[in-house]
Amino acid sequence: MIKPRTPPGVMELLPRDQIAFQRMLDTIRQTFERFGFLPVETPVMELSDVLLTKSGGETERQVYFVQSTGALDKAGDGLPELALRFDLTVPLARYVAEHEHELAFPFRRYQMQRVYRGERAQRGRFREFYQCDIDVIGKDALSPRFDAEVPAVIAAVFERLAIGEFTIQLNHRKLLRGYFEGLGIEGEAQLLVLRELDKLDKRGGDAVRATLAGEGFGLSGDVIDRLMAFSQVRSQGHFDALAKLDALGAGTPLFEEGRGELRAILAQLKALGVAESRYALNLSIARGLDYYTGVVYETTLNAYPQIGSICSGGRYENLAGHYTKSKLPGVGISIGLTRLFFQLKDAGLVQTAESSVDVLVALLDDAGLEHALALSQRLRAAGLNVETQLEPRKLAKQLQYADKAGIRFVAMRGEDEAARGAVAVKDLRRGEQFEVAEAELASALLVEREQLRGGIAEGVR
Amino acid sequence: MIKPRTPPGVMELLPRDQIAFQRMLDTIRQTFERFGFLPVETPVMELSDVLLTKSGGETERQVYFVQSTGALDKAGDGLPELALRFDLTVPLARYVAEHEHELAFPFRRYQMQRVYRGERAQRGRFREFYQCDIDVIGKDALSPRFDAEVPAVIAAVFERLAIGEFTIQLNHRKLLRGYFEGLGIEGEAQLLVLRELDKLDKRGGDAVRATLAGEGFGLSGDVIDRLMAFSQVRSQGHFDALAKLDALGAGTPLFEEGRGELRAILAQLKALGVAESRYALNLSIARGLDYYTGVVYETTLNAYPQIGSICSGGRYENLAGHYTKSKLPGVGISIGLTRLFFQLKDAGLVQTAESSVDVLVALLDDAGLEHALALSQRLRAAGLNVETQLEPRKLAKQLQYADKAGIRFVAMRGEDEAARGAVAVKDLRRGEQFEVAEAELASALLVEREQLRGGIAEGVR
Repeated sequence: MIKPRTPPGVMELLPRDQIAFQRMLDTIRQTFERFGFLPVETPVMELSDVLLTKSGGETERQVYFVQSTGALDKAGDGLPELALRFDLTVPLARYVAEHEHELAFPFRRYQMQRVYRGERAQRGRFREFYQCDIDVIGKDALSPRFDAEVPAVIAAVFERLAIGEFTIQLNHRKLLRGYFEGLGIEGEAQLLVLRELDKLDKRGGDAVRATLAGEGFGLSGDVIDRLMAFSQVRSQGHFDALAKLDALGAGTPLFEEGRGELRAILAQLKALGVAESRYALNLSIARGLDYYTGVVYETTLNAYPQIGSICSGGRYENLAGHYTKSKLPGVGISIGLTRLFFQLKDAGLVQTAESSVDVLVALLDDAGLEHALALSQRLRAAGLNVETQLEPRKLAKQLQYADKAGIRFVAMRGEDEAARGAVAVKDLRRGEQFEVAEAELASALLVEREQLRGGIAEGVR
Repeated sequence: MIKPRTPPGVMELLPRDQIAFQRMLDTIRQTFERFGFLPVETPVMELSDVLLTKSGGETERQVYFVQSTGALDKAGDGLPELALRFDLTVPLARYVAEHEHELAFPFRRYQMQRVYRGERAQRGRFREFYQCDIDVIGKDALSPRFDAEVPAVIAAVFERLAIGEFTIQLNHRKLLRGYFEGLGIEGEAQLLVLRELDKLDKRGGDAVRATLAGEGFGLSGDVIDRLMAFSQVRSQGHFDALAKLDALGAGTPLFEEGRGELRAILAQLKALGVAESRYALNLSIARGLDYYTGVVYETTLNAYPQIGSICSGGRYENLAGHYTKSKLPGVGISIGLTRLFFQLKDAGLVQTAESSVDVLVALLDDAGLEHALALSQRLRAAGLNVETQLEPRKLAKQLQYADKAGIRFVAMRGEDEAARGAVAVKDLRRGEQFEVAEAELASALLVEREQLRGGIAEGVR
């Protein structure tokens, strides 16, 4: 006998949590499609030489390699031929380069699949997790207007997920670089300074100030003041964001370019009707410095800042330089849904769902089987999810089962109801029982179900 | 520069084929849920010792093992710790055994995920492919009535997929074993004889007859006649199936048990309203002899018998004997969707889909941007999938793009339309153009879209 267990670092859910998770996936997918994004799925296994073009130590150590038994026998020099994807960006680059001549650009794609990382196992860290990504890829060039469409999609996603107030935080790499250059901080040093500024919350202002003034950096007190003031800029509301951008004063041409793009993004978010509480400047955001070249995004839940960014991304210069000579600039964003779901559960922000089954058609005795089967099929044809009790049991047991399973309605038809052409329905959520003509059962249950779902915002606002 | 390419034996689709594939997945999932099945997802990686409890040579040689870079360095004796699942049945056994006390039985679960097999690469064979499985698992016992529910689900799935006429073929292991025992063929010999009978189509009657009469088998001409007649029984229609069962004559108790269960399945399929053209007896079906113990199913497309079974399964005695002492009988069936999709495309039975985008909101000049964005959001709020043209281009180019991308409607608003509070709509499928008041645009397009979708059968019949 072998103990049934999953490997460490994976998330496996019981059905009613799986239903809740699946609904989040469905909402995200539907919203991505609302904004014209097209689905892509790529294989979980990629050729190692294709996947690992640019990876150095850190990434490569987290990669899972794949070998069939045959290959193990023959194992020799070099890396195994196959590896599991560790994100959806490298597969996207490979996909776009491979299918370049079959795709229409700008190419809006979404992809929602699992990725794999050999992380050290610890609570809330996963070795297998869902990423839900959107990217828009241009050929040669990509309009900066997509930089505003991406946060508009994300705002719609999180509004429909209804997991609380959130803020999409914006910064811009050109603004950042331009500002640093204006202070005489160039090249590599920008990165090192940004890393120090990033520790402000943890280390406190005095410690960071001491480091930046000390050997290695040797920055003047005035420059440090400006850096810290800059990195602490946060806006509240649309006009505050514009005012804060204005208040930064004149800067280098690069700085002005970044500021101009941020202003255009803000204007477009307004035109798209995105509520102004949903977006804000946060000039401390840097993100993958070697990758992003324009706007960068992070999204936080207002009431749960400790969760950190639940959705991040930005603009990049060239997606697939390893695979094609074509220049493919893009902008994209990613939701790490497995980790997010885990944290939302932890914080009580998502609940175990009711069953996906709407109705249990009860069975009181064998004579009722044929009718129960036919009734079940009619309810299904009307669009209801129906479980049929196939073996007669005591009614109390059947109700108990439905209650435990999270099934809201139990349809029962005893001799009395049969004589009246009616069905008795127990509504386990409301704790009520009612009788309805059998011919009207489906529509009655559908109305009840829709009333409930009406409570959930349907449209993209 | 590295050539962008996928490993051999995986299926990767362009977006419009991915949309068609995704619609099949959605239809299957929705139908599974209609019948009260609950979703389960398991990790793609399982612990090797858990996954490979019972596998011998053949299976094990097809298993993909997974190792992180760190583990490769340390590679020593024994198999790697992790392996990719090669089906959804072993993970189901592990899942049910692991969560036995948290699940309600009978446990109806569906699972639609990819599985991995190190098959020799050849056309139409995949190393990564989707399986769409349903199973009902009982604790200690499971009503035979589930044996009829499973083909009813499958009939609903294939009707809604609308890929042509199909037949779910039924046989029963007890009928088979009982019949063989009645002819004095016991134990291991049954399996060998079945294998020979299975070659009837390929080798022809005379060759098979010669083998069964020859050394090793040494069966009499009379017994061979009976075996061949038995294995060639096929029914057409409900009453023919019952008549053919009757015509088999009296048999052993085991045979009678199997026949009784088949009769009950037929009666229940009728009560469920499954069209009688959808199911038939085929007494040559055996399937995994060491696994199935009751009813067995295979499904074929009537016009494409060469595709073979597109959906197979049956009843088994005990799901998870390697993991738990509890007896867990079950019945289930599996659709290998990747291979099926590949074959349907090949046979012209599924088409590249139209885009998931319903409308392209055109942009004629920069002044129109703000309106185009707001209009797009209103259409999205109404439930339409909308792509906004973000940079002005010649209208002809925009129409050409929509046509190529498979987007049906293009909404255009020039000065004239703006003055009238109207929008011009080009319907690229019908090649028509019409004008509609802007306030009525969303509902007009929704009506058009629904009319189209109305063509696709929605209900479970």
